[in-house]
Amino acid sequence: MINIAILGYGVVGSGVAEIIEKNKNNIAARAGQNIQVKRILDIKNFPDAPHKELITDNPDHIFKDKTISLVVETIGGTRAAYEFTKNAFMCGKHVVSSNKELVAAHGPELLKLAKKNRVNYMFEASVGGGIPIIRPLSRCLSANRINSITGILNGTTNYILTRMKVNGESFEDALKDARQKGYAEADPTADIEGHDACRKIAILSSIAYNEFVDASVIKTEGISKITMNDMEFAEAINSTIKLLALSRYENGKIYCRVAPGIIKKTHPLAGVDDVFNAVLVNGDAIGDAMFYGQGAGKLPTASAVIADVIDIVHDRYSVVDNVWVRPEKSNLVDIANESIRLFARFSARNREAAKQKINKVMGKVEYIELKANNEIAFITDLDLEGKLRALLASLRGSSEINKVENIIAAYI
Amino acid sequence: MINIAILGYGVVGSGVAEIIEKNKNNIAARAGQNIQVKRILDIKNFPDAPHKELITDNPDHIFKDKTISLVVETIGGTRAAYEFTKNAFMCGKHVVSSNKELVAAHGPELLKLAKKNRVNYMFEASVGGGIPIIRPLSRCLSANRINSITGILNGTTNYILTRMKVNGESFEDALKDARQKGYAEADPTADIEGHDACRKIAILSSIAYNEFVDASVIKTEGISKITMNDMEFAEAINSTIKLLALSRYENGKIYCRVAPGIIKKTHPLAGVDDVFNAVLVNGDAIGDAMFYGQGAGKLPTASAVIADVIDIVHDRYSVVDNVWVRPEKSNLVDIANESIRLFARFSARNREAAKQKINKVMGKVEYIELKANNEIAFITDLDLEGKLRALLASLRGSSEINKVENIIAAYI
Repeated sequence: MINIAILGYGVVGSGVAEIIEKNKNNIAARAGQNIQVKRILDIKNFPDAPHKELITDNPDHIFKDKTISLVVETIGGTRAAYEFTKNAFMCGKHVVSSNKELVAAHGPELLKLAKKNRVNYMFEASVGGGIPIIRPLSRCLSANRINSITGILNGTTNYILTRMKVNGESFEDALKDARQKGYAEADPTADIEGHDACRKIAILSSIAYNEFVDASVIKTEGISKITMNDMEFAEAINSTIKLLALSRYENGKIYCRVAPGIIKKTHPLAGVDDVFNAVLVNGDAIGDAMFYGQGAGKLPTASAVIADVIDIVHDRYSVVDNVWVRPEKSNLVDIANESIRLFARFSARNREAAKQKINKVMGKVEYIELKANNEIAFITDLDLEGKLRALLASLRGSSEINKVENIIAAYI
Repeated sequence: MINIAILGYGVVGSGVAEIIEKNKNNIAARAGQNIQVKRILDIKNFPDAPHKELITDNPDHIFKDKTISLVVETIGGTRAAYEFTKNAFMCGKHVVSSNKELVAAHGPELLKLAKKNRVNYMFEASVGGGIPIIRPLSRCLSANRINSITGILNGTTNYILTRMKVNGESFEDALKDARQKGYAEADPTADIEGHDACRKIAILSSIAYNEFVDASVIKTEGISKITMNDMEFAEAINSTIKLLALSRYENGKIYCRVAPGIIKKTHPLAGVDDVFNAVLVNGDAIGDAMFYGQGAGKLPTASAVIADVIDIVHDRYSVVDNVWVRPEKSNLVDIANESIRLFARFSARNREAAKQKINKVMGKVEYIELKANNEIAFITDLDLEGKLRALLASLRGSSEINKVENIIAAYI
C-alpha cells in the first residue's frame, strides 16, 4: 500500500480524495497496489467534510512522515505551492500537481530539483483538466517531430464565446452568465485576458519541442474586445471566433501566441463549444490528432491527477523524463516578422471613400458585407504581421475612417 | 543501443523503418537510447527498397539472433503472424503489433504467453491507426470507471458515408471512388461489413472493462445497405449516419455492437469525416473525452507502433499490464433485451393506410417528411430492440406496406 498526502482541500484536492475512495479497487488494479490518502493539508477547517479527520494545518505532519511517499499539490499559485513542492522533493517525495501557474513559472527549476532528489514531478492535470494531453504528447506521439499545437485551453472564455455565438449575447452578459454558473471566478482576469491559456500553451510547447517556453514572453491577448459585430462578420464567412493558444516549431524556432482567432466552421476546433477544451496536434508522422474533453471541473481534473499518481506508484515514470532547461534568451520568434492574415473592422464616415482609401493602403483585401451592419470589415492577404498592423494603424488617422473597431487573426 | 526486427515489409512495416531512421535523434532522446532496425523479415524481394540489405526470408535470422530484443509484427492476419508472435515470446523477445485481427482473436493467449516469458506484447497501432487510444484508455483514464466507448473506427466506411452525404453519391459509386483512391482494398468485405471495426471495439472494450470481449460474438452490421434515401431522411432531422462501434458497461454486463447509427449533427462524432477515425470515451470522473486522428495510413500507424517500441525500450511497461482472461461464456448482453430507438423506412402501396397501420402496430412514432420522397420513414419511441424489430417485422406482411427498405439504430 502507498500513502499519499493532498496539499489543499479545494475543488480539485477534494475531488482527488473522493475518486481515490470511490474507485479504490479499479485504481489498485491499475497501480498494482492500494493507494490511500493519509493526510490532507489545509489551513481552513472543514467540520463537515468526509475526510475531516485527515486534515491538518501542520505541514510537518506530511513532510516529516516517512510513510508518505507522494504528495498531490492542488493549492495553486506560486507562493505556498512553490515552497511545499520544493520541500516535498527535498524530503524525497514525488509530487503530482494540477498547478499550471507554478509549472509555467518554475518548471525548469522544479524538474531539476526533482531529478536531483530522484523523485518525479508530474502535472498532466495542469493542462486541459481531465483531457489526457501531456502523456499523449510526450509518450504516444514520441515517434513524431511535433510541428504545431493549436488549443482551446480555457473553458471560461470558450463558454463566453459560445454564448455570444449561439445566444447573440454581448461579452458582458455572457461573462455575467458564466459567473452565475460558476464557470468564471470573482476576478476573471486570468481567464478573460488569456493568461491561463498562455501558461498552458507554454507547458505543452515545452513538452512538444523539448525546450522550455517561458510563458511571460508569449504575446497574449484575451477576448474582452470581441463584440457581437465581430461574431456576425465571422458568421457571414461561415467561420467562428475562438480563443486560440497556438505554437509551431519551424527551423529550430518557436512561434507561440494566445489570441482570438477566426477559423472556418469546418476546422476541427470550431465545434468545440461551451466549457470544453481541445488540443489539435500536428506531427510529422501522425498528421493531425485532436484531444477533446472537459478542460476543468472537480472530477475531470482529479481524474488526471490520479492518472499521474497511478503511473508513479506503478513505477512507469523515471526521473530522467521531462527535464527542461530555461534558455538564456527567449527562444520565441518575433511574431511581427511572421506571415498571417488579419480580419479588420472599421466604422467609417463615408463607406465608399473609406474603401478606396483601404484599397490604396492595403492592396488586396476581401470585404465581408453584412446587410444590417454599416461597418467595413475585411480580411487582408497573407503578409508579415508587423507590416499589416502598421498599415492598418496608418488608416486610423485618415479622414475617411472613423475608428478601427477591432483586429483579429484570421486562420482561414 | 537496442536492435529490433520488423516482420513484414508492407505499408506499415516499411513506415516503421522509415520513421525510425528519419526521427532517430528524437526517438533516442525519448527512449533513452538509440533504436536500430537490424533485420526485416519478408518472403518477397525488394531490390529497390531503402532497407533491402536488412531483408531476409529466414525467420531464424531474427529469432535466433540474441542481439535482437524486440520484434515489430506488421504482417497482419492470424496465420504466420500468430506463429511468429508465439516464437518471439518463447525466444524472450518483446512484440509490438499493429495486427488487430490477431489481438482480437488470440489476445488472451498471447498476453498470457508474453507474461510467462517476462516480455511485453503491445498493440497501440491495432486500433485507430496513429490515434493514441489504447494508452489513454489504460493509463490516462485509469482513475475512471469507463462507462462507454463510441467509435468511428474504420476509415474506409467513414470515407464512403462521407462521400454519400457530401456528394450525394450512391454506396456503389462511393466505394468505387474509395478503391480508386486506395482507401478500400480489392476485397473490401472486412471493412464494408464492419468486421474491422468489430475487432477494434473488441480490443478497446477488453482494455476499458478489463474483461476480454470476444469479437466473434459481437453483433456486427456493415454499411452496404445504406442508401441515399437513408442519408436524406437523416439530413431532414439534422442528423447523419455513421458506422458506429460502441460498447457500454452497466451492472457488470457489457453491451457491444457494430452497426450504422443515426446521430445528431451536434454529436461530437458527427463532424468526423473522410478517412478520419475518432473514439468518444465516457468515464465516471472525466465525463466525455474524444480522441481524433488518422485511423490508418503508413506513417500514422508507424507512429503508434514506434510509441510502443519506445515505451518498452524505456522500460515503462511491465509484463503485469493488460492480461485478459477469455471468459467461459460470453460476457455480452443480448442486445434484443436492451432499449433503443430505431429508424425505419418503408415503401407503401397506400401512404395514408400504411401510416394508420403503423400507428396501430408501433404506437408512438415520429414521422420524417421529405418533399421529394414518397417513402414512409419514422423513428420509434425508446423500447426493447427485440420487441421493436418484431413489431417492424410484423408490418412486413401487411397489405398496406410494400417493403421494409431499411432499419437503422437512431441515437437521437
